[in-house]
Amino acid sequence: MAMTEDEKVFKDPVHGYIYVHDPLIWDLINTREMQRLRRIRQLGTTYFAYPGGDHSRFSHSLGVYEVIRQMIQAFDRNNYDWPHQYDRLAMISALLHDVGHAPFSHALEKVMGTRHENWSVTIIGHPESEVHQVLEAAEPGLSGQVADVIQKTFPNRLVVSMISGQLDADRLDYLMRDSIATGVDYGTFDLARIIRVLRPLEDRLVVRRSGIHTVEAYLLARYFMYWQVYFHPVSRAGEVLLRTVLERARELVRRARAPFETHPALFPFLIGKVNMEQYLSLDDASLFNAFSVWQDDEDPVLSDLARRFLDRRLFKEYPWTPALDGRLGDVRQLVAAHALDPNYYCIVDETGTVYYDYYLGSQREPGPENAIWLYDQATGVLSEMSGQSLPIQAIAEEHRPVRRLYVPAEVLADERFGKIVEG
Amino acid sequence: MAMTEDEKVFKDPVHGYIYVHDPLIWDLINTREMQRLRRIRQLGTTYFAYPGGDHSRFSHSLGVYEVIRQMIQAFDRNNYDWPHQYDRLAMISALLHDVGHAPFSHALEKVMGTRHENWSVTIIGHPESEVHQVLEAAEPGLSGQVADVIQKTFPNRLVVSMISGQLDADRLDYLMRDSIATGVDYGTFDLARIIRVLRPLEDRLVVRRSGIHTVEAYLLARYFMYWQVYFHPVSRAGEVLLRTVLERARELVRRARAPFETHPALFPFLIGKVNMEQYLSLDDASLFNAFSVWQDDEDPVLSDLARRFLDRRLFKEYPWTPALDGRLGDVRQLVAAHALDPNYYCIVDETGTVYYDYYLGSQREPGPENAIWLYDQATGVLSEMSGQSLPIQAIAEEHRPVRRLYVPAEVLADERFGKIVEG
Amino acid sequence: MAMTEDEKVFKDPVHGYIYVHDPLIWDLINTREMQRLRRIRQLGTTYFAYPGGDHSRFSHSLGVYEVIRQMIQAFDRNNYDWPHQYDRLAMISALLHDVGHAPFSHALEKVMGTRHENWSVTIIGHPESEVHQVLEAAEPGLSGQVADVIQKTFPNRLVVSMISGQLDADRLDYLMRDSIATGVDYGTFDLARIIRVLRPLEDRLVVRRSGIHTVEAYLLARYFMYWQVYFHPVSRAGEVLLRTVLERARELVRRARAPFETHPALFPFLIGKVNMEQYLSLDDASLFNAFSVWQDDEDPVLSDLARRFLDRRLFKEYPWTPALDGRLGDVRQLVAAHALDPNYYCIVDETGTVYYDYYLGSQREPGPENAIWLYDQATGVLSEMSGQSLPIQAIAEEHRPVRRLYVPAEVLADERFGKIVEG
Amino acid sequence: MAMTEDEKVFKDPVHGYIYVHDPLIWDLINTREMQRLRRIRQLGTTYFAYPGGDHSRFSHSLGVYEVIRQMIQAFDRNNYDWPHQYDRLAMISALLHDVGHAPFSHALEKVMGTRHENWSVTIIGHPESEVHQVLEAAEPGLSGQVADVIQKTFPNRLVVSMISGQLDADRLDYLMRDSIATGVDYGTFDLARIIRVLRPLEDRLVVRRSGIHTVEAYLLARYFMYWQVYFHPVSRAGEVLLRTVLERARELVRRARAPFETHPALFPFLIGKVNMEQYLSLDDASLFNAFSVWQDDEDPVLSDLARRFLDRRLFKEYPWTPALDGRLGDVRQLVAAHALDPNYYCIVDETGTVYYDYYLGSQREPGPENAIWLYDQATGVLSEMSGQSLPIQAIAEEHRPVRRLYVPAEVLADERFGKIVEG
Repeated sequence: MAMTEDEKVFKDPVHGYIYVHDPLIWDLINTREMQRLRRIRQLGTTYFAYPGGDHSRFSHSLGVYEVIRQMIQAFDRNNYDWPHQYDRLAMISALLHDVGHAPFSHALEKVMGTRHENWSVTIIGHPESEVHQVLEAAEPGLSGQVADVIQKTFPNRLVVSMISGQLDADRLDYLMRDSIATGVDYGTFDLARIIRVLRPLEDRLVVRRSGIHTVEAYLLARYFMYWQVYFHPVSRAGEVLLRTVLERARELVRRARAPFETHPALFPFLIGKVNMEQYLSLDDASLFNAFSVWQDDEDPVLSDLARRFLDRRLFKEYPWTPALDGRLGDVRQLVAAHALDPNYYCIVDETGTVYYDYYLGSQREPGPENAIWLYDQATGVLSEMSGQSLPIQAIAEEHRPVRRLYVPAEVLADERFGKIVEG
Repeated sequence: MAMTEDEKVFKDPVHGYIYVHDPLIWDLINTREMQRLRRIRQLGTTYFAYPGGDHSRFSHSLGVYEVIRQMIQAFDRNNYDWPHQYDRLAMISALLHDVGHAPFSHALEKVMGTRHENWSVTIIGHPESEVHQVLEAAEPGLSGQVADVIQKTFPNRLVVSMISGQLDADRLDYLMRDSIATGVDYGTFDLARIIRVLRPLEDRLVVRRSGIHTVEAYLLARYFMYWQVYFHPVSRAGEVLLRTVLERARELVRRARAPFETHPALFPFLIGKVNMEQYLSLDDASLFNAFSVWQDDEDPVLSDLARRFLDRRLFKEYPWTPALDGRLGDVRQLVAAHALDPNYYCIVDETGTVYYDYYLGSQREPGPENAIWLYDQATGVLSEMSGQSLPIQAIAEEHRPVRRLYVPAEVLADERFGKIVEG
Repeated sequence: MAMTEDEKVFKDPVHGYIYVHDPLIWDLINTREMQRLRRIRQLGTTYFAYPGGDHSRFSHSLGVYEVIRQMIQAFDRNNYDWPHQYDRLAMISALLHDVGHAPFSHALEKVMGTRHENWSVTIIGHPESEVHQVLEAAEPGLSGQVADVIQKTFPNRLVVSMISGQLDADRLDYLMRDSIATGVDYGTFDLARIIRVLRPLEDRLVVRRSGIHTVEAYLLARYFMYWQVYFHPVSRAGEVLLRTVLERARELVRRARAPFETHPALFPFLIGKVNMEQYLSLDDASLFNAFSVWQDDEDPVLSDLARRFLDRRLFKEYPWTPALDGRLGDVRQLVAAHALDPNYYCIVDETGTVYYDYYLGSQREPGPENAIWLYDQATGVLSEMSGQSLPIQAIAEEHRPVRRLYVPAEVLADERFGKIVEG
Repeated sequence: MAMTEDEKVFKDPVHGYIYVHDPLIWDLINTREMQRLRRIRQLGTTYFAYPGGDHSRFSHSLGVYEVIRQMIQAFDRNNYDWPHQYDRLAMISALLHDVGHAPFSHALEKVMGTRHENWSVTIIGHPESEVHQVLEAAEPGLSGQVADVIQKTFPNRLVVSMISGQLDADRLDYLMRDSIATGVDYGTFDLARIIRVLRPLEDRLVVRRSGIHTVEAYLLARYFMYWQVYFHPVSRAGEVLLRTVLERARELVRRARAPFETHPALFPFLIGKVNMEQYLSLDDASLFNAFSVWQDDEDPVLSDLARRFLDRRLFKEYPWTPALDGRLGDVRQLVAAHALDPNYYCIVDETGTVYYDYYLGSQREPGPENAIWLYDQATGVLSEMSGQSLPIQAIAEEHRPVRRLYVPAEVLADERFGKIVEG
């Protein structure tokens, strides 16, 4: 396979341009599995809160590839030790790491009980996927190595940590991309400088000490993005409603009273019995179209929930308070008094476990992949980040869960609701 | 209806923030007809060429409203004569002018023979639409006035030209928005300054003479956006394929051999017999989902075309040359020799009529709505724009159509193709 | 004086445009005292560290005016109580608050023992200044009110806090402006949103509770700007050298062996005996020109220091360590051993007192002007900011001084220096 | 000299970061001749029109270096033929090409009768300049090669055209930089893409045909920058006044009645008898400081003109009309009737010769360095740009001079002035 004469480029809001020189990368981008990611929203239901937040996982995947490409380039410019035999593997793993995402990205993983990483590994290893075929045609065994990097079992820990770690290419890209798309300005940081202060040091990626404030800014940008975007009450309300529609549809399918069948892979997907080809035939559109049909379904719960989703009549949130702990039953009764089924119209949403993840440095003995290490090039001393920065220490310990009650607006406005929560 | 306590805002990549103070505007935004625009791409198939170009018509509609809001504010700051009784009407018309768009915006209008303006007027006037109900509840007769502004029959020409004219809020917003979303930097211009140099002068909107270069930049930005985005060969290839899939599906429906029915409104839409409720139940997702199902249809033409669209295996363009004029039959035979039906796999695409529209100043006697007038505030003299600027005069006369032949890549690569086009 | 027909505007990197409608504001901008600020760098010697950081105090002054203008506009849009009789006073005070700055802004205040606020008040009150004359011609007594606002003695505390407070227009403008000019991206925050969440509440300016993360981002931007820009070692090195040159020149003047006289106001300024007209005739250029002449002065200390400043051969910093506490004498001896006068070539720079100022919330009982108050509009409850945010609490308590030793590079490279600091 | 361990960077508003890897480049940047450029405004008096337009020629010099660095990198990525032995020479020539600029850049060249290119060559070749010493220490003879590239006598035309040509690094940088600094948005273009479509082809730099619209946008950006910035009436008014002050001072020096001597090199400079060391001791500050002193000079013409410059009381422009051709004498008499010397207070400013330069393609037989050539990589055909684009053809022929009359505002407001110009 000959080198393409001129480099290929994609215009991109984060990186300006994304450059492709290796024909293998180009061929992987053009597989049907990668093209499908154009039809999956990176941020699930966040577009309900931020109209601009409907960018695709395809753009993000290209972006992660580009970050790795720039990292390797920066290692070279600074004459750092980096095993060049892994250049291609790192770039390919970056590009393909999200190929297994379900419709609406993370939003469905909980209700479906699936994990996109597993699907990514499945797809890359499956003899009938185009990515598998392209990889194996280029180099027999390559698909297995890529899968190993993605599932973090690849022996070279440095390569793994560039794709999955505290300062990995994945986070660096999505934080910037989501910030730019939503317009949440203070989620940005100095990506070019972060890439420049990174340095491979044996089996881990460390940060030159002079980069401490840049990394502080990155971690705080992460903190802001969680609060302003990922935990945004309206974004969560969309996800709550999305899951609720699907749970109702699943319930109907289980009862052998299936709603109108809009796509042959949808019911298998709902009941967790989907094969790869079926899985890959689904995207955001499969759900939107189903909801559009279901809004006229004979089941009143399904039709109401689907219509609410399409018309953005989301449930309203009520921040959880200790006083609510013993009174959820009362709220459910009130919902029932509005002639609504509390199993679908009274939802407790908790996102804390995701939130804790933003910085793992509070563990007493952080392993090489769980912490950010500052490296003093003069003395060779390594220091863990949270010990060197008061604001980072502060947010590293802030792992309280975000818990909210979601009910329809009319329930929240009912004066009986006020009495319940006030006790 | 009481004024909301604090203003409502939307974060926006063009305007920073979009501000809503009037509860009627807020209620209109929350109708199901407006919310549907969140699921319709502003730029149809342009995302094939520019991954970032998948922003929605909802964002654009908010943006046009915001431009009108800022125009009126600027008129006030400068003490210009502006009939304030039309404030609300102008803002509402801006917000609703695109409410009737079909899936993929303009891309389907040609194949379906519909016009979104007609559907906008229909929806606004229909007693069962939420926008109609909200408008009439606020002020009886208001829906009729809004429809008149949109179809340009409203008596006040100034209000009409702010929504539909050479420097209307619609173009000002979409050029900036499409430029930012695609990343085509030189499609930007100085929107704040254009708004500042606009001045109502009796029944038309003129430009203060000092703004001549700003308007030059705007018209040239328009020129660039046509060449770099709207006429982009890949963007057009997407539209060609989209129309071709639908034409095949329509043909099958006509032959009473319908493909799998994925949405009850789809076939009525395809054969042009759709009512408002059905029309409004369709969006981009309806087509994507249909294509996903059709890629396994028993009709090989439909399944191949649908699969090509999903996997982005678009036809390739060959720029039309005079030499091709008499040889289209030969090309069609070559396509047939590849076992492909030339009615679906050999398409001539022409976009010239749209392109000519970027500046109408070449008409010998431009009416008040067809030209941009520069106004010398000292002397009161009005001058038509293209007579005052050499580059604008140059592009005003450039109305050659853009004609291209689209065939599958394998046909273009066939050496017999080269012989045909070379004669 | 008639209203100008069209509004006046300035193009601006922070605000896009700065709008002027009041002819009095326009006349004040055109006074010679305000025009002089075009020749004074906002950031003193920071341009040594960031080449883009040479923007002028004139731009900043316009910017502070614009922030006040936007604040008042936002109060109106939200129907907040705001005493409109103070509109003009607030905007004028914002515009003029820095009119008394010395060359290189803050950099010279320490060595000269002057304060720009005092000079601002003097100039505004002086019958021979143009700003005084313009103010009094517009409204007798106005100059006194403006002076009162600037020196914080004006009775209305709300107006005072908009110019001088934790969230005043001054800080909001300079943080954004300095961040954009230097390119330190993570110093930016969402200015439009901060202005929107501010609310006048009797005699203070509070923040709507929903704006908590926006204010967090603002305070953290402030934290980053201190570390990355204001405390930057190279920026401080420039200031250290600037002061040292002037101290040597002053010493020579005192000894009656004056260096070449480049400007008649310079020596009076150096010895602290300058009148207003002399003060106003000086700007950054007066010092640069003097240094250019002095680089060939017969006094070897003066000529060397001046030449170092012009050629950017700054002293190098060594971060202060406890070990250094008793060894400054040794370092001074080493400097002397290099044939350099330790009084000029061995400088301890400390900036901590400025740094502490970034957030005063750690005081146990903050007064209304010393803290940022979050206001819950539903309940009316006010909460002090640092109690509501872990990262802000963390940086509010971080008031350690930044102390550094500055010596010429050759001294730092001397191996004896290493022995001294290692003990 | 060892390679520095980590790369050196400068934060920059145009390029994000400017990267330096070669210690020779680093040493050249740190010479006193280069550091002097920090004190010379890139745009002379343009800051009077655009407050942000006071960036320095130092930033621009770094930027031109960076563009060359990126060009070479892009040639490599695309495997184009480029003689790598010239890498260093091209980068150094870019960095040093403006080292000979006088205070206020171009503004003084006309009145002083000097050319910065000549001074650049002089400085690079002078044994006492630091740049000369650094170059010769690195490689004997290198300074001569650099001088040859700058004065376009170097044998390799490709290297010359990258520094001085229609698409040279100099223009690419200054157009972007001046556009960003002034905030004139439509002066921007897609720099990354221009660099990507450039291709060395034997002895010239051509443009890949696919880049036609990018180059159109670049040339139109140039057109806009001339009209909105470089020819801006206020910017020109500043330059007119600057030259007038210096002409008066020169006249006084010639008459042996010199104004107060603020800098020993100033009078030699004014009368054109300055040596290199004197020339290098002057910068913008030398003039500002002189004006500050001269505003109290005993010569009323000098003091008034100097004060006007400092206080920005510029002359006002009147666009030249054919009717004025025979009436300049009447205007001069009117100026005299205001007790003003018409030799200093009635100036005709013409900038046309500069303006024509923006595109040389109108020459019938353009040589390789006078035109932009589009290169069709498939066919190898070269086409001259203006023949391929209507808007470029239009502006290529627009070479009318910009002629304006400048007089004090009070003269323009005199009703007799109106009668003269109306005839």
